[in-house]
Amino acid sequence: MQDLYMELIGLSAGICTTVSFIPQIVKIVKSKHARDISLWMYVILTMGIFLWLVYGILSSRISIILANGVSFLLCSFIITSKMKYRR
Amino acid sequence: MQDLYMELIGLSAGICTTVSFIPQIVKIVKSKHARDISLWMYVILTMGIFLWLVYGILSSRISIILANGVSFLLCSFIITSKMKYRR
Repeated sequence: MQDLYMELIGLSAGICTTVSFIPQIVKIVKSKHARDISLWMYVILTMGIFLWLVYGILSSRISIILANGVSFLLCSFIITSKMKYRR
Repeated sequence: MQDLYMELIGLSAGICTTVSFIPQIVKIVKSKHARDISLWMYVILTMGIFLWLVYGILSSRISIILANGVSFLLCSFIITSKMKYRR
């Protein structure tokens, strides 16, 4: 039972941290502004997410692979948008 | 040996995703601007990080507790700064 609760908490946590990038993408695309966003933050974050993805693949944990695979794509999109709307 | 590599990858991943917020904090504090940053992103992300923290506490995994505890504080600071430098 404790395990079920834990997996539900982990699943909710993964969904939150993954979908959180969507409002930021919507904001950049709508406003065409990304000046206040730190490029370094997203470069380091995307590296970290990539390492989590490798960790997930090595440990064959589908939830880690899925959450970090999607986050990796979303953060890469934010990096591209930041480069485009630098000012 | 595979386990040692995996733990090292997990540790590096945790360090990256945690410290990544520091350049964003430095940028906001220096520029006193946070207009382009999505408040919703940080609200959802901080909720997710809090859930990972609970997950870490329930599973007694120090690395998850430490990484998400620090990330929770850093993201909460970004939310406070965003409210302060909204425009």
